[in-house]
Amino acid sequence: MDQQIGSGSLCFSEAPFIVSSASVAGKKESEGPLGSCFDMVGADDKFGQDTWEAAESSLQKEALTLALGKAKCRAEEIRFLFAGDLLGQNIASSFGLKSFEIPLFGLYGACSTCGEALSLAAMCVAAGYADRAAAVTSSHFASAEKQFRFPLEYANQRPVSATWTVTGSGAFVLAGKSLEGELPVKPLARITGVTPGKIVDYGVKDSMNMGAAMAPAACDLIARNLQDFGRKPEDYDRIVTGDLGSVGQEILIRLLKEKGYDISRLHEDCGIRIYDKKAQGTGSGGSGCGCSAVTLSAYYLKLLEKKELRRILFVPTGALLSPISFNEGQSVPGIAHGVVIEACE
Amino acid sequence: MDQQIGSGSLCFSEAPFIVSSASVAGKKESEGPLGSCFDMVGADDKFGQDTWEAAESSLQKEALTLALGKAKCRAEEIRFLFAGDLLGQNIASSFGLKSFEIPLFGLYGACSTCGEALSLAAMCVAAGYADRAAAVTSSHFASAEKQFRFPLEYANQRPVSATWTVTGSGAFVLAGKSLEGELPVKPLARITGVTPGKIVDYGVKDSMNMGAAMAPAACDLIARNLQDFGRKPEDYDRIVTGDLGSVGQEILIRLLKEKGYDISRLHEDCGIRIYDKKAQGTGSGGSGCGCSAVTLSAYYLKLLEKKELRRILFVPTGALLSPISFNEGQSVPGIAHGVVIEACE
Repeated sequence: MDQQIGSGSLCFSEAPFIVSSASVAGKKESEGPLGSCFDMVGADDKFGQDTWEAAESSLQKEALTLALGKAKCRAEEIRFLFAGDLLGQNIASSFGLKSFEIPLFGLYGACSTCGEALSLAAMCVAAGYADRAAAVTSSHFASAEKQFRFPLEYANQRPVSATWTVTGSGAFVLAGKSLEGELPVKPLARITGVTPGKIVDYGVKDSMNMGAAMAPAACDLIARNLQDFGRKPEDYDRIVTGDLGSVGQEILIRLLKEKGYDISRLHEDCGIRIYDKKAQGTGSGGSGCGCSAVTLSAYYLKLLEKKELRRILFVPTGALLSPISFNEGQSVPGIAHGVVIEACE
Repeated sequence: MDQQIGSGSLCFSEAPFIVSSASVAGKKESEGPLGSCFDMVGADDKFGQDTWEAAESSLQKEALTLALGKAKCRAEEIRFLFAGDLLGQNIASSFGLKSFEIPLFGLYGACSTCGEALSLAAMCVAAGYADRAAAVTSSHFASAEKQFRFPLEYANQRPVSATWTVTGSGAFVLAGKSLEGELPVKPLARITGVTPGKIVDYGVKDSMNMGAAMAPAACDLIARNLQDFGRKPEDYDRIVTGDLGSVGQEILIRLLKEKGYDISRLHEDCGIRIYDKKAQGTGSGGSGCGCSAVTLSAYYLKLLEKKELRRILFVPTGALLSPISFNEGQSVPGIAHGVVIEACE
């Protein structure tokens, strides 16, 4: 029986497998430290399309196609899709995924959506509702700048606290314990538990400092996860946030110290890992729901597969704002969703 | 054990209860045929706020507060919230629900979001992941016009095929079979199955004719539900779509006839029911993810509670577009999520 534990976590007795994953990334990402790890990179960021939004849809389509190929399964074998992006009304997902004809749950958790999608897909598979489900998320630098800040043509300047939206999409195929022994490929890892996130609002109003807006939500999530599972930070080989960047990382480590947890030696951030900050001029780090997705696929899942990591807490982080809420003077609340990922035995 | 049936439906062996529901609606809705059925109506559509977006957030907050009160439960007893709205980046939900401090799954399915939220909440509760979960959705005429069409101040004219976005929010508290006999109130109904929706794109490009864009998705969903559950249309007392309006209704009935199903005597549409089309000048009918939510709460759940209806198929319908996708010449694909709701024994 699956367990409700503590203040909102779930511990799966039949932990779903991550059977395959794929990452598709943009040109800038291909020039960063993970450049050689992505499954596919674009020669430019248009991916053969006429608009940035269609380019982002194309990223999702390619990522899911690659992940299905690696899992050696057909689209019809995926019972449910969980997907989202940063654009208003989730258009990157709707237009990118419609041709697969798979029942779709559209999600919005800002840059935490990869964690939300993996959580719901894992819950669905662990409950026996689907033998296979998939999670897909994306972001695109140019479509996000147009959506949230200014079109690129304005050539706006950016403060150092600003993050750089990752052009990329990650897709993950999950399978239930019912398929154990019958899977055509060796799974990469297992999702053994989840801690869904609450909205945490510290009243930050600076849309150019997302790290500060999201760090309190990541802190709340990590502390609740440790309490719910009765773990110490050291029970994880890594605690990996989505896109706090270097500004948010500092705040997170300090906030958790105040709660009695020292994660300074365990903490990594996908937004810090994906770019060479100095050489690439990416400010505080990468961001976007593609950031954590491609980094999980291209980097952390490979370490889990090789058993160089045994157990990580993956915590994609999101800043809940829209151009309208920002212009109307609202704060930027944060949310984070936690996924416990372990190596297969 | 819960059952995967057919092409993507689920049939719950331990059907979750809808313990309570609440509806909050705007002034125009209060003047329509369901006016006396809503739990709360606004004297104006600002709900005490300075902006339309904040007014919509306020709708969600009030609806969930009322539903919790009717269920005689505290916010802490709700393990997960499933919520969404029509605005870019789901801001009505984020700002409306943050004060409850309940783990939140943000959803986007356009006007089908009420079906998506009820489906996921039911799946979560039926799997034993939560003793109680809640689903909340909203829409607001003025925030939606500003988001999708033109600000009200422009005084634009509307074609007759255009629908009228409902100002309203519906909230639903679900509880699992584990709480049967322990619930402080008599439940209203049960969710016995769900059919999650696929994106269906017939290439409609007219953002003023959403009914035509959504009818094919509703047709696909209803046909799949009947096949998966091995039912005839008459096995439902009503088949209730979300917001096809009178234009979309005609198309749906014709499309289903072509597939061999006659639902003409069973079909109702929340968007048609909520307004007096002639007297209120609401074009093809009501729309928005508040439309199906408040109509389910204020009207259909009451008939199910009184056992005047025994079983309905509730099919909120959504049109997947954004101002950007529309301006870039993309089509308007549709999606619909099906929820089977039955009277308690």
